[in-house]
Amino acid sequence: MTITRKVEAARLRDFIESAFRACDMPPENASQMARLMAEADIGGQDGHGVFRLPQYIKRIQAGGLSVDPEISLVSERPATALLDGGNGPGHLVMSRAAKLAIEKAKTCGVAWVGARYSNHAGPAFLYARMPLAEDMIGLYVAVGSANHMPPWGGTDMLLSTNPIAVAIPSNTRPPVILDMATTVAAYGKIKTAADRGQEMPEGWMIDKQGRALTDPSRAGEGLLLPIGGPKGYGLSLIFGLLAGTLNGAAFGADVVDFNADSQSTTNTGHFVIALDIAAFADVGTFKAQVDAIWKEMKSSDRLPGVDEIRLPGERLAATAAERRANGIPIPEALGNRLDSLADRLGIDRL
Amino acid sequence: MTITRKVEAARLRDFIESAFRACDMPPENASQMARLMAEADIGGQDGHGVFRLPQYIKRIQAGGLSVDPEISLVSERPATALLDGGNGPGHLVMSRAAKLAIEKAKTCGVAWVGARYSNHAGPAFLYARMPLAEDMIGLYVAVGSANHMPPWGGTDMLLSTNPIAVAIPSNTRPPVILDMATTVAAYGKIKTAADRGQEMPEGWMIDKQGRALTDPSRAGEGLLLPIGGPKGYGLSLIFGLLAGTLNGAAFGADVVDFNADSQSTTNTGHFVIALDIAAFADVGTFKAQVDAIWKEMKSSDRLPGVDEIRLPGERLAATAAERRANGIPIPEALGNRLDSLADRLGIDRL
Repeated sequence: MTITRKVEAARLRDFIESAFRACDMPPENASQMARLMAEADIGGQDGHGVFRLPQYIKRIQAGGLSVDPEISLVSERPATALLDGGNGPGHLVMSRAAKLAIEKAKTCGVAWVGARYSNHAGPAFLYARMPLAEDMIGLYVAVGSANHMPPWGGTDMLLSTNPIAVAIPSNTRPPVILDMATTVAAYGKIKTAADRGQEMPEGWMIDKQGRALTDPSRAGEGLLLPIGGPKGYGLSLIFGLLAGTLNGAAFGADVVDFNADSQSTTNTGHFVIALDIAAFADVGTFKAQVDAIWKEMKSSDRLPGVDEIRLPGERLAATAAERRANGIPIPEALGNRLDSLADRLGIDRL
Repeated sequence: MTITRKVEAARLRDFIESAFRACDMPPENASQMARLMAEADIGGQDGHGVFRLPQYIKRIQAGGLSVDPEISLVSERPATALLDGGNGPGHLVMSRAAKLAIEKAKTCGVAWVGARYSNHAGPAFLYARMPLAEDMIGLYVAVGSANHMPPWGGTDMLLSTNPIAVAIPSNTRPPVILDMATTVAAYGKIKTAADRGQEMPEGWMIDKQGRALTDPSRAGEGLLLPIGGPKGYGLSLIFGLLAGTLNGAAFGADVVDFNADSQSTTNTGHFVIALDIAAFADVGTFKAQVDAIWKEMKSSDRLPGVDEIRLPGERLAATAAERRANGIPIPEALGNRLDSLADRLGIDRL
């Protein structure tokens, strides 16, 4: 993978914002999208930031994604809500959902806000992280935007990577942020392997005969494997029922492959939970205890050949610090795609 | 494994209740313990039901477990609560927690109730399942009662299997019930393999040099492996912070190995969430949709050699139906242990 340029975060945000504004997205929406998508790149989730811009624009231009969605409240209780995303970008819908969850959790201690008629929202950590600013813990779950996994033992593509993210604040360390697919490999990693002409390790995919599939150019015939076999299948199914079915959103055979289809309404479902630490513990004490757990894990003796023990969220924090200082690397192929997008939209190239 | 007897569920409950009453447990507590522990056996979680009775009794007699705990409210918000379990059995503490969560969720839509100063509670599904009776979804997470897993890349035993259970009701099918450890194998499965003199498959454990460990008699030198490598480690860590640290309960190096130590207060932490389906959807419609998802998964084409696709909770329901009809098989070694327990306590043998 050749890196031909590095761009500053501010420049990346400007570029994304200009692209959306060129598609008639209202300025405040475009600005919010740009900020969140750039955060994905800054955090090192390269498959979920500006990488997705051409696809989002294509969907907007095909009429499959609303640039000015009416996000409405379908139902509400003191600690819950269900939003209808009005077929808007998941970023806007789930930012609204997280904000509402935080407000409700201030009184109730916890809140669970689901959404339907939403769309792909980028990396899960973005929304799990939002409650941290209010000394809350965040959880986020989504129905993935394309089915690449069968039920355990099956071959029909009925399940997605259905990710979960959880963010827990610490005091002097970065927050603990888990952001994981329920499959061994996210589909983006397979696309990256294909781009690079690399073999996949065994355990990522099998073919419909159950044989290991390691050639990423054959990924179209392959089935993603869940973590822990039936356990990851179970997690994906449960998350799909909670983030999709319960919200009246798509799950199972209803899921629209948004890579292949830019027009059909995806009716993507997600949910976010905000949990107020102060409802359970003194916030300062809790954060200090998370620091202590952090230190305890880092100090463990190590297996031969292991340099360092990492906590979830540690690499994200390090990558973000490095990229905020030195810019975000743009691989050549992506840079070329973004250049032609800019030319088509009549905006400055990145 | 030789099965020397099968006992009816009612007889098993009576036996467990008598054993606890012989240890001066108040009748209502003994009856509740018996009901829940027998449910574990009925559901096929053989390592978490009457199998644990000798250990619980040992702990009671050593002064490490209260038979008449004062379960008190430490803090409360409309949708949250933190209970102090008074060092009582986890079964009693988490039944109380689930009841409180259900009450709160009726108004708030969702409730999250944590507990500290609790103890081992048997299988996770028991508590996730409680909200089903009120047309609610249940989630339950616990800090496991002994550390058998290091952080990813490490060798210090700082983490447990920290299980999660989620229960979602259907209409005509059994409820979808996921009940899983964050490790590839629960420690009980390794004990069972050792009892049977069977090799463990590769992938369950490694030794401190990182080599596959397949001899269960060497399990004491081994490290449990998390599902999905760093992902399962991340889940175990996050669940430990949420069920342990946030509640002021033990997590990490503080966890007391309740197999090895019958006296020290374990300060076990758990939490349970009740989520009211009616806050999001029409209950009947939702249950019918879960049926439809059930059918969709079952109907998938299958990999060669696979007879049937199962949903989480399906085997539990089938085992429970069979055992309610035909009795619960008691392996010979367990039967002998229970006989000597009965003799020591002066109660009728099972």
